[in-house]
Amino acid sequence: MNKIVVRQLINNFNKYKNKEVQISGWIRNNRDQKEFGFIALNDGTHFNTIQIVYEKKKLYNFEEIAKFRAGSAITVNGIVIETPSAKQPFEIKANKLILEGDCPEDYPIQPKRHSREFLREMAHLRSRTNLFTAVFRVRSLVAYAIHKFFEERGFMYVHTPIITANDAEGAGEMFRVTTLDLKNIPITKEGAVDYSQDFFGKSTNLTVSGQLEAESFALAFRNVYTFGPTFRAENSNTARHAAEFWMIEPEMAFADLKDNMMLAEEMMKYIIKYVLENAAEEMEFFNKFVDRELKNRLENIMNSKFAQITYTEAIKLLKESKEPFEYPVEWGNDLQTEHERYLSEKVFKKPVFVIDYPKEIKAFYMRLNEDNKTVAAMDLLVPGVGEIIGGSQREERLNILEKRMEEIGINKKEMSWYLDLRKYGGVKHSGYGLGFERAVMYITGMNNIRDVIPFPRTVHSCEF
Amino acid sequence: MNKIVVRQLINNFNKYKNKEVQISGWIRNNRDQKEFGFIALNDGTHFNTIQIVYEKKKLYNFEEIAKFRAGSAITVNGIVIETPSAKQPFEIKANKLILEGDCPEDYPIQPKRHSREFLREMAHLRSRTNLFTAVFRVRSLVAYAIHKFFEERGFMYVHTPIITANDAEGAGEMFRVTTLDLKNIPITKEGAVDYSQDFFGKSTNLTVSGQLEAESFALAFRNVYTFGPTFRAENSNTARHAAEFWMIEPEMAFADLKDNMMLAEEMMKYIIKYVLENAAEEMEFFNKFVDRELKNRLENIMNSKFAQITYTEAIKLLKESKEPFEYPVEWGNDLQTEHERYLSEKVFKKPVFVIDYPKEIKAFYMRLNEDNKTVAAMDLLVPGVGEIIGGSQREERLNILEKRMEEIGINKKEMSWYLDLRKYGGVKHSGYGLGFERAVMYITGMNNIRDVIPFPRTVHSCEF
Repeated sequence: MNKIVVRQLINNFNKYKNKEVQISGWIRNNRDQKEFGFIALNDGTHFNTIQIVYEKKKLYNFEEIAKFRAGSAITVNGIVIETPSAKQPFEIKANKLILEGDCPEDYPIQPKRHSREFLREMAHLRSRTNLFTAVFRVRSLVAYAIHKFFEERGFMYVHTPIITANDAEGAGEMFRVTTLDLKNIPITKEGAVDYSQDFFGKSTNLTVSGQLEAESFALAFRNVYTFGPTFRAENSNTARHAAEFWMIEPEMAFADLKDNMMLAEEMMKYIIKYVLENAAEEMEFFNKFVDRELKNRLENIMNSKFAQITYTEAIKLLKESKEPFEYPVEWGNDLQTEHERYLSEKVFKKPVFVIDYPKEIKAFYMRLNEDNKTVAAMDLLVPGVGEIIGGSQREERLNILEKRMEEIGINKKEMSWYLDLRKYGGVKHSGYGLGFERAVMYITGMNNIRDVIPFPRTVHSCEF
Repeated sequence: MNKIVVRQLINNFNKYKNKEVQISGWIRNNRDQKEFGFIALNDGTHFNTIQIVYEKKKLYNFEEIAKFRAGSAITVNGIVIETPSAKQPFEIKANKLILEGDCPEDYPIQPKRHSREFLREMAHLRSRTNLFTAVFRVRSLVAYAIHKFFEERGFMYVHTPIITANDAEGAGEMFRVTTLDLKNIPITKEGAVDYSQDFFGKSTNLTVSGQLEAESFALAFRNVYTFGPTFRAENSNTARHAAEFWMIEPEMAFADLKDNMMLAEEMMKYIIKYVLENAAEEMEFFNKFVDRELKNRLENIMNSKFAQITYTEAIKLLKESKEPFEYPVEWGNDLQTEHERYLSEKVFKKPVFVIDYPKEIKAFYMRLNEDNKTVAAMDLLVPGVGEIIGGSQREERLNILEKRMEEIGINKKEMSWYLDLRKYGGVKHSGYGLGFERAVMYITGMNNIRDVIPFPRTVHSCEF
């Protein structure tokens, strides 16, 4: 007897045709008639269910089976039968069908439509619905595609630290990590919190980015990437913000902004292609029930050469557009989502890199351009979302970097290791960050970040 | 002109033979003679350096080049020349050689032997040494092998949460995550810390394991795995403990302890094979300079069927051994590293699974055996290390799990979502955890966990 999973059967039905197999899974639906019944069985390995046919004349426990509820776990031994006229090319005729795990009537996931808000409260069970089966399988595939993409190109994977004493990036609010007793905080003579008594002997936080450490590895291994969790303690309760999310940050030595853009474009196309090829059923489902433009939009991305424009040109286009933007368009202001979407959706109708932003609105480590006003930054804007990737060529010139750090008050002593990377064999280098959940949202069409994270963490919410 | 990296050249030298290429990298060594000189160039893409030959009669800046120090970054244009009699089958004859980034004389990474302790202080530069080039490339390969192994078997990758309000596992001390102002902690009327004012509205910590959440996904997708950071705030300053480390936790529905052991054995062999095949130079280096038994030991693992023994049998063998153990051998005590190593090194001379431990020394979620005294736990012990994997079949019987939780005082209400997994279509399921750094140490022969983590976090140490 072949013990198999649904994916094996669907992918290679001919191998099992007219043979007996054993298969286990959960009942999505059970319809019984007088002499026989049908179970739609899902075992989680494939988006689709398979049909189990059970007959009264064959199964001693027919009456019992007919009462198995949705959500129950069963194991079936049966023959794989070709069904040329049916929707699915085969079904399983049960020889034996036993209950593995019962499911009481109060099961929250009934075979009907549930709201996404309701299912968020049921994050431990929602993966059993079609929608979340599809979302989390695509999430897994996107992750694998990313590793595969970089591995094929010889990029080394680096785990940058999660706990950090380094807050130089200043990218938003951070979470404190501590083992101090909050009811008995030690205080120094000067009246400050005495972090010397904390676990690490200093003040520590959760990382907001692995970039600075990734730079250190790029200057040894040339091409590297990180893929790990990052954190923001921002009190913003929006559909696009989570306190805990994953980021991918490639970093390349001997690479300038142009190389950086090429990599980002190649990566986006690779991921989309991989998912379309490896999750056909799931993508069809999203296109039908979540966003009817989804596949068009993704195929458009795969087949277009991304556009490129400077920030200064973008401001000019936005000013000329006469669109009634909510936020003012002025050289020196950051672009808002409405501006970003206008550029990618109305002007270019495809992804567009905006480069060379004013230095004042970008991070200290971005490379100063010759105009002394802009830096070699790049943001990738995509239709439907706006910014999905942010990156830059890094400032490799020690004196210019030091000057910039002084200007904005970054402690050079604490960052001496980062300056060492410029001092000792420093070279031009570039990298970017892709928010993993943003990418998953983009590819699935889901519009709330809480619905693409297994157990989301947002302000006032840390369940399971 | 072909812009290439060292790995391309070494892997496919024939393609570039007698052609001009451009290559960038860092000088490991520079020896000049009167009329010509030799640079050993490494660009991080391959363990090996390649030889650059520069000639006075060809290069206007010969005198300058001769002074380039180790650590400097250069770009070379040159012809790839076959060198049949030399150690490496080719060298590059420079037509042009320019400095990309200077390296001053105080460069800490000189071409000589540095102690590992010294290099730990230089974690931002140590990847430029042979030893750490090798360690971190193998680390990257092990990570990829793990993803590939599970992907090929249809396991879904799940990101379980890093910040958690759940401390039910009780696996050691946890780090608190908070945005409360430590100088002004809010206190409730009852005199407790008022966590309702914290970011998540409750007390939160860094996760020690993603297992419980992975179980929820296994009961929807059948076969899943996690691969993410986990944390222990233990005040133990040993060569084997870090405060932050990565874990792999597969979880399978419809799988018992035997399936679990099969997966663990297959995974270990797969990873080792992948690294031996894809990091031949690095493994040769470790075998020569780190541990002369390394390759033998790993090949022994690949080629042996792992042994299996119950805890009760193990205690009997240890008692009969008459070895002068430091810790007493008594049924009911946990096995210590000395016992574990004795079993795998002296008794079995290969990896051995010890199963069926007393329930008192194992976690609440492990499945109670019929003897009512032991649980379906498994630890994999390997020669040279001791325990490398710990896992179990999980208790799927709701009433028995509830009873066990009551016995040891776990709040059932807080864990109701976990109990739901038994209530609604619960089935037998199993999984294990592999400490990623332990695996990297085992495969590289490195004996300090600080030397296999890019930027290690240990008690009193959180640098970079």
